[in-house]
Parts: sequence; C-alpha cells; structure tokens
Amino acid sequence: MAPVGPRSGDAIFSSIDRVNAELFTLTYGAIVRQLLTDLEEVEEVNKQLDQMGYNIGIRLIDEFLAKSGVSRCVDFKETAEMIAKVGFKMFLGVTASVTSWDADGTCCSIILEDNPLVDFVELPDTCQGLYYCNVLSGVIRGALEMVSMKIEVTWTRDVLRGDDAYELQVKLLKQVAEEYPYKDDE
Amino acid sequence: MAPVGPRSGDAIFSSIDRVNAELFTLTYGAIVRQLLTDLEEVEEVNKQLDQMGYNIGIRLIDEFLAKSGVSRCVDFKETAEMIAKVGFKMFLGVTASVTSWDADGTCCSIILEDNPLVDFVELPDTCQGLYYCNVLSGVIRGALEMVSMKIEVTWTRDVLRGDDAYELQVKLLKQVAEEYPYKDDE
Repeated sequence: MAPVGPRSGDAIFSSIDRVNAELFTLTYGAIVRQLLTDLEEVEEVNKQLDQMGYNIGIRLIDEFLAKSGVSRCVDFKETAEMIAKVGFKMFLGVTASVTSWDADGTCCSIILEDNPLVDFVELPDTCQGLYYCNVLSGVIRGALEMVSMKIEVTWTRDVLRGDDAYELQVKLLKQVAEEYPYKDDE
Repeated sequence: MAPVGPRSGDAIFSSIDRVNAELFTLTYGAIVRQLLTDLEEVEEVNKQLDQMGYNIGIRLIDEFLAKSGVSRCVDFKETAEMIAKVGFKMFLGVTASVTSWDADGTCCSIILEDNPLVDFVELPDTCQGLYYCNVLSGVIRGALEMVSMKIEVTWTRDVLRGDDAYELQVKLLKQVAEEYPYKDDE
C-alpha cells in the first residue's frame, strides 16, 4: 500500500479550482492602486497590504491543511520547506526555495523564482518605498499564527526595487504550545 | 486541415497560467472589506468596485483576444455569447448563459451558474445595498469599450441579496466605428 503523506504541490495545484493568473495579477494591482490613492503614504500602504495578507492567511491555512494532507511539521525548518515547496505551488502555481538558515534554525530566506503578482508592474518614482508584494508576507504571518508560530517577515530582495530576485526573510519569534480550551469530556 | 477559429473556453482555460481560486476569492474579499472601511458609503463602494473592474477590463481584453483566437464578432449577440461561453470560462473557470434578448438584439441577460467571487461570503445587515460582485460588471464594460462597444451593465439578480442566481443585464448603448488614427503608409 502506498504510504499516506503530504501530497506534492504540483499534484494539489492541478486538482483544485483555479482562476486565470492574469485576472488575479490585475485584481491585485487594482488593490494596490486603490490603497495608494486612498492612503497617500506609501508606508501606510505597506502596512495595509500586510494586514490584508494576514486576514487572508488566517483563512487560507484551512485550505492548505485540508488539501495538502500535511499534518504537523516537526520543526520550523520543515515548516519553511512546506511553505516554499507546497504552499507557493498550491496557491500561486510557482515554486520557491529555502536558503540562508541561521545556526539555531529559527531564521531563513524564502526565494521566489517566479512571482505572478508583479507581471506588467513597474513602480513609478513616487512609490519607491512601496513593498508591492507585501500581501505575501502577511499571508505567511497569518497562516503560521494559526499553527501557533509567531514570525516576523521582511523583504530582503525585491526585483521591483532593482534586486535580482524576490527574497523574504522569515524569522521565528515564538512557538506557542497549542492550548485546548475544552476538555474532551465536556 | 482543421479550421482555424476561436478556441473553446475549456481548452484555453486549461492551457494558461492560473492561481488557486480560494486565494483569489479571499483576496477579492479583502478588497471589498478595505473599501467598506475606507469609503463608508455602500454606494461609493459599488462605484469603486465597478471602476476597478473597468480598469481591469480594459487590460484583460488583450489577454482575451491573444489567447482565445476570437477576432471580431459579427454583432452584439455573438459578443454576448463570447463573454458568457469563452470569457467567463477563460478567466474564472465557470460557464455562463445568455438569455432574455430584446427584440432588436441590443439587450440581454448573462446568468452565472457558479460564481467563485462569493465563496464563503455573507453580507452583514449593514451592507445590504452592496453589489459585492460589481467588479464583474466593470470588467465587461471596460473590455467591451476597448472593442468599440459602449454598454451599460446592471445586476438584476444576486444570490447574496436573496435571489436564486447571479444575473447581469447587459445593454448596448452605442457601437462606435473603429477609427484608425494612422494611415497604412505613414
């Protein structure tokens, strides 16, 4: 019998409902434009995109757990690999790689080889402080909070800012032991 | 030799880049929530969603024309069928049907059998005037304007408002003859 375990990102991605990537890209672009108009300050837009991502992440984790067959990662290292190899593939159809681990395994970089959020995007000079893809860092932060990991995510490279790749530094701040508010017999 | 002609929505949809539908749904939900917070008036949110859709539509038409193989529709009737059968399938992965044509073929209804924008959505009592999916009417309006058709789109049925389906009434206001600003030999 084949072992039951996590499914590959490719297998999951091909079996779930999807929409056209360009529609998604343009829709996301419309959000960013809207926020820039409404909020004026680029720093506020970064914050808002991160918050929107967080709200998405705390719900998307359910879909991830339900469809991926992933149950519990043994440590943060495995968690980061799951995000890069299964999560990005499953939701955006792209792969990412994990590098630059620190000595105690609580900080690493996730590098995106492809990023559907930024197709056709060029930042005007007035938006140079913008983290256009900040929704992604929020999504990861929200999703991991739902599995009891407090993390901090920062962009260390961004093609829109002239770098050669998209790189997110993910740092584990605290791992909360899961609490069960109700006893089994209640 | 097989005739060259428009490809089916299914064939196009399976051959293009896509992202997870739930991610799209949650991202769209985050926009609507953001607009409700920023703009306060539901009527303003409806207007803004329509405008965002318009901005998306005027760009999405290029992808539609490039990928679908559709060239020029002979009349508005064919255009409406293309939107329903090819457009909705190609971008949202769902099918729609066209009904209720008026006598002179300038007004019809597009009925959505499935609507990925509204998965998990329930409108609170404070948002009863909201046209949650108003981005769709804007997309159609924007896309058709790029092929020289001025239209008016109104929601006539909306499941979120208690109806049994999603129905958009699409009315052709004006068909502008295409103008070529440059002569061939310039």
